[in-house]
Amino acid sequence: MVFVLKPGRSLEEIDLFVERIESRGFKTFLSIGTEHTVVCLIGNTASIDLDAVVQANDIVQYGKRVTEPYKAVNRTVHPEDTVVNAGSVPVGSGMFQVIAGPCSVESEEQIIEVARSVKASGATLLRGGAFKPRTSPYAFMGMREEGIRLLLMAKRETGLPVVTEVMNQTQLPLFEDIDVIQVGARNMQNFDLLREVGRYNKPVLLKRGLANTLEELLMSAEYIMSEGNSQVILCERGIRTFETSTRNTLDLSAIPLLKQKSHLPVIVDPSHAAGIRALVAPLARAAVAVGADGLMIETHNDPAQALCDGAQSLNLSQFSDLMEDLKRRIAFEGKQIGAV
Amino acid sequence: MVFVLKPGRSLEEIDLFVERIESRGFKTFLSIGTEHTVVCLIGNTASIDLDAVVQANDIVQYGKRVTEPYKAVNRTVHPEDTVVNAGSVPVGSGMFQVIAGPCSVESEEQIIEVARSVKASGATLLRGGAFKPRTSPYAFMGMREEGIRLLLMAKRETGLPVVTEVMNQTQLPLFEDIDVIQVGARNMQNFDLLREVGRYNKPVLLKRGLANTLEELLMSAEYIMSEGNSQVILCERGIRTFETSTRNTLDLSAIPLLKQKSHLPVIVDPSHAAGIRALVAPLARAAVAVGADGLMIETHNDPAQALCDGAQSLNLSQFSDLMEDLKRRIAFEGKQIGAV
Amino acid sequence: MVFVLKPGRSLEEIDLFVERIESRGFKTFLSIGTEHTVVCLIGNTASIDLDAVVQANDIVQYGKRVTEPYKAVNRTVHPEDTVVNAGSVPVGSGMFQVIAGPCSVESEEQIIEVARSVKASGATLLRGGAFKPRTSPYAFMGMREEGIRLLLMAKRETGLPVVTEVMNQTQLPLFEDIDVIQVGARNMQNFDLLREVGRYNKPVLLKRGLANTLEELLMSAEYIMSEGNSQVILCERGIRTFETSTRNTLDLSAIPLLKQKSHLPVIVDPSHAAGIRALVAPLARAAVAVGADGLMIETHNDPAQALCDGAQSLNLSQFSDLMEDLKRRIAFEGKQIGAV
Amino acid sequence: MVFVLKPGRSLEEIDLFVERIESRGFKTFLSIGTEHTVVCLIGNTASIDLDAVVQANDIVQYGKRVTEPYKAVNRTVHPEDTVVNAGSVPVGSGMFQVIAGPCSVESEEQIIEVARSVKASGATLLRGGAFKPRTSPYAFMGMREEGIRLLLMAKRETGLPVVTEVMNQTQLPLFEDIDVIQVGARNMQNFDLLREVGRYNKPVLLKRGLANTLEELLMSAEYIMSEGNSQVILCERGIRTFETSTRNTLDLSAIPLLKQKSHLPVIVDPSHAAGIRALVAPLARAAVAVGADGLMIETHNDPAQALCDGAQSLNLSQFSDLMEDLKRRIAFEGKQIGAV
Repeated sequence: MVFVLKPGRSLEEIDLFVERIESRGFKTFLSIGTEHTVVCLIGNTASIDLDAVVQANDIVQYGKRVTEPYKAVNRTVHPEDTVVNAGSVPVGSGMFQVIAGPCSVESEEQIIEVARSVKASGATLLRGGAFKPRTSPYAFMGMREEGIRLLLMAKRETGLPVVTEVMNQTQLPLFEDIDVIQVGARNMQNFDLLREVGRYNKPVLLKRGLANTLEELLMSAEYIMSEGNSQVILCERGIRTFETSTRNTLDLSAIPLLKQKSHLPVIVDPSHAAGIRALVAPLARAAVAVGADGLMIETHNDPAQALCDGAQSLNLSQFSDLMEDLKRRIAFEGKQIGAV
Repeated sequence: MVFVLKPGRSLEEIDLFVERIESRGFKTFLSIGTEHTVVCLIGNTASIDLDAVVQANDIVQYGKRVTEPYKAVNRTVHPEDTVVNAGSVPVGSGMFQVIAGPCSVESEEQIIEVARSVKASGATLLRGGAFKPRTSPYAFMGMREEGIRLLLMAKRETGLPVVTEVMNQTQLPLFEDIDVIQVGARNMQNFDLLREVGRYNKPVLLKRGLANTLEELLMSAEYIMSEGNSQVILCERGIRTFETSTRNTLDLSAIPLLKQKSHLPVIVDPSHAAGIRALVAPLARAAVAVGADGLMIETHNDPAQALCDGAQSLNLSQFSDLMEDLKRRIAFEGKQIGAV
Repeated sequence: MVFVLKPGRSLEEIDLFVERIESRGFKTFLSIGTEHTVVCLIGNTASIDLDAVVQANDIVQYGKRVTEPYKAVNRTVHPEDTVVNAGSVPVGSGMFQVIAGPCSVESEEQIIEVARSVKASGATLLRGGAFKPRTSPYAFMGMREEGIRLLLMAKRETGLPVVTEVMNQTQLPLFEDIDVIQVGARNMQNFDLLREVGRYNKPVLLKRGLANTLEELLMSAEYIMSEGNSQVILCERGIRTFETSTRNTLDLSAIPLLKQKSHLPVIVDPSHAAGIRALVAPLARAAVAVGADGLMIETHNDPAQALCDGAQSLNLSQFSDLMEDLKRRIAFEGKQIGAV
Repeated sequence: MVFVLKPGRSLEEIDLFVERIESRGFKTFLSIGTEHTVVCLIGNTASIDLDAVVQANDIVQYGKRVTEPYKAVNRTVHPEDTVVNAGSVPVGSGMFQVIAGPCSVESEEQIIEVARSVKASGATLLRGGAFKPRTSPYAFMGMREEGIRLLLMAKRETGLPVVTEVMNQTQLPLFEDIDVIQVGARNMQNFDLLREVGRYNKPVLLKRGLANTLEELLMSAEYIMSEGNSQVILCERGIRTFETSTRNTLDLSAIPLLKQKSHLPVIVDPSHAAGIRALVAPLARAAVAVGADGLMIETHNDPAQALCDGAQSLNLSQFSDLMEDLKRRIAFEGKQIGAV
């Protein structure tokens, strides 16, 4: 952490500031210049509120964190790619996986039909919402426990590992046989939930919040890792901007940036980002090309009758066509899909 | 809900669409024009996924919700202002309240000193964080249960009703003697938590999320009210935009808009919005003038040593000066501060 | 400008970097620490592309401009408030002015009727668009030269100084008798136009662009001042955000921030920001309270028939009511409206 | 255009509204329902200010444009892809082009060296700024007329068609031998400039503004086409969002959306979007995969010494490596680069 002091301050004022900092247990390094004096802090500064120091001390012109505030997720600490084992399939470091399935589990017939079909098309994980966060209290909230039961039935039927979203920590006991626990965009900064899933020994799919920076996403992954769970998959799913022709703006720059800063695998959800069926295929292609480690694609046997998010779901035949295309592209990138 | 169909479609296609809608239990009203055919839905359409209908049915050019999706919070349903009784003080409908106190409860001395001072200056409620949502897992998380205990001690000492934030529903039993439960910006769409606080018979202070629209804020209030708790205070605290010279952008247009659409009281938190001490006073003045029902202002006995958010906290003397000014302004608006 | 170098670099590498910087004519001050080495640049660094230096030199961890890139507009250079003489009325430093009038000049009858009425209500400047920037090439573009002529007729009729927008520099000769030249939001970074109006000896009203930061707004004012024209009034008129319930989000924090960083007067346009008539009055009140030096309010004799932006225009009686209220508020703030 | 009226209004009120609309020359189609009455307007509604009608007429609950406001750029009017002939190379409809070159022309040696090198690597057009829009009035503004002269020298030397930016219409006579006139992001809504370039018979590269919607981009292209010039290439170059880890957020969803709504070719500028050299290659790959018709990539012989935007420029060898990769990808997409 570096502080640049205002010009023209007396040595006593400078000393007072340095003492105040050192009284918190930091070593400082001071360089007094003709214009600006610079104070560098040495030590783990993660607990310091930088803005507070700047504004509380009139002598400071500005301050800046020089090292990233995240440790465990940082690639400098762990230079190799992390591979997350999502049930039987590995994600990351050359292994590319495709998660497919409906927004919500709606019935036994539905989830079994979708599971069989997406497996036949080449999907390697099955998704299906049991607990659904909905903006309106009057909307369909998911089948809840029964949804989990049906999803696990589809897993037994097809062998596909399953991904589903947890909405609060009291639900976690129901996730014992789930392969990947999803933390949704609206819960990305539900810090108590992050800590709880960090205590499980199970992969976590962490979606970026609609208005969260990449640094905040990495800090939320750090919450999970700081509790001992290093099986975290990051997911870009669009951010909120002024543009209204898509539901959100998919930020594909996030993928190479996250992979540069962190060793964790990163996947892309083009369905929620765009909210428009016709954009799913081109954005999925772009995600493969930009270097993502996987995709999450909403697929439904009858999108017109879907109980939620039908507008963005591919039908089974559209998904099958897309997978044919994606398999060629994954191979083009020198990556592999499925088990090793 | 209104659907405008694409031009040049056959009567059979139109019939098929109408049947599909009616099979979901809605009555429709159809008007066939030379250019466009319009289908109006009659009934409670809150459960319909509008986008899904539009995209699932190729015949639809576009659809639009004509009535707001919120009911209980809607001013058309409840034309008079709701007054929320926050402990001994009423909020709304001409009663203006000022909540002051530190970001975090840090010690008995601190919270008692701040409580006494802000009360003497004219604050009518005391705030103080016990459970703190922090971006970093390594930052100070609040004193937790002990923080609640100290806050209640300050309440007994001064008589000020107290406001503090809940981070998850398992903490709610600790809030029995708290006067107002705060749901923070990051939890505005933690729907399970909203439902839980909706089952308590206690005022809820609901902060707008950093990237949430006013309609989403009202829908979250609707979650609380749909469980039977109608004591909700809305709070504007800044939204995330491209501008970086303030931490967030305080959206003061939200106050008259929310008060037009809803009967709930609306307060403003200029401290978190700006993140800069020098902006707190001018923004507080603007909030009074724009028609807010109250303010929430971070105040600390020693901002330079605050364990969080010191950069935006007023010290006790700055708060006292501000209150002198605000009292004149509240009176100028024809409003009253404190108990009736 | 300060550069913090990466840890563990050799003295030769550091020397190479310092030489490269000094070869551009800057003096440097170097402080070598155990962890980080810091290089401070001394001299006018406004011409340096900071990001380029950081990325071009692998040795640099990060760099930061310590001084603001604007000079002439900077309050540190010119501590007193600038007062801009807008025709017969001064703006700034305790003098508060209200600019009223229609979006577009539409006819002689219209502009004369509006001018007389807003003058009687207490407006101190008249606005009226002659050249109109419109998103669609098929929309009404303004009466152009004839609009200027009619606006000047209204000026002679009422004595009100007039404000109107220039769209490109070839139009400037027509503005000889206009009192204040407006540069619109979409032209805030039309740098050639800024230079041209900087060569006139006439007040310029510079509107903030929809997606421009405050620093960029000040840099655009710097363009005007760098050509010799110091008569610049800044105008906040809303920025683009994700919120769609207002046309733009009025950023009232901008007013105290701009006045802290610069000596130029700052006014507020609540009409364009909100795009909703019912919000104009509350936002105007907030603008007075937050410390603005003036307001610009769209007013029309028949908003329902306005050729542009009728949705946000007050009618003459609404404007009259608002002015009654604003006069009390301007006095409350200890400010004065009109001529000295 | 469709208006839904408020429930419970009398037939006289409805008639009054219809008359008012028809008095402006529109035919209406009225359907009176038990809940809502709907009024459809027939005719070219591009000149109507929708919001003004809604707010000026209390009887209207809400209104919506059903047809797009753009005509000439609309794919429904012109279903085939437009191919723009950029000098000797065609852009669009299976022809993919790569524009490379420095941010600014800095000297004869520089532009000739870059031009020869990028041509050898496979670039098919040369870019180079002569007139540079810069946020600061103290930054390098480009070599201006001399820059144009040197760019044309590089064109003669290599045979590459050239692209360069115009900043205002008085400069246009200098662009006679330029192959593609660029209108920059800050000028996307400089409507007078759009009209002027619309009167030239020369391809225009129109960049999306930092805060402009896709509809606004298409409306700006409509300005150019409405003057008779149909040779327009659209360019996505990133939008302004809250995310600060990249300079702008590249919106790749824009490419399939623009190509669905319009027949014009669309290219991508990853250099300006990201502002970070390391992101240029992955984003360029994603742009090819998402369906773009070309790329614009900043390339410099010595990025560390570039007079502007060096941070995002590839050096000549990096560009050469990227082109090797891109050629394989362009072929993979079944597209062709260069002349037919």
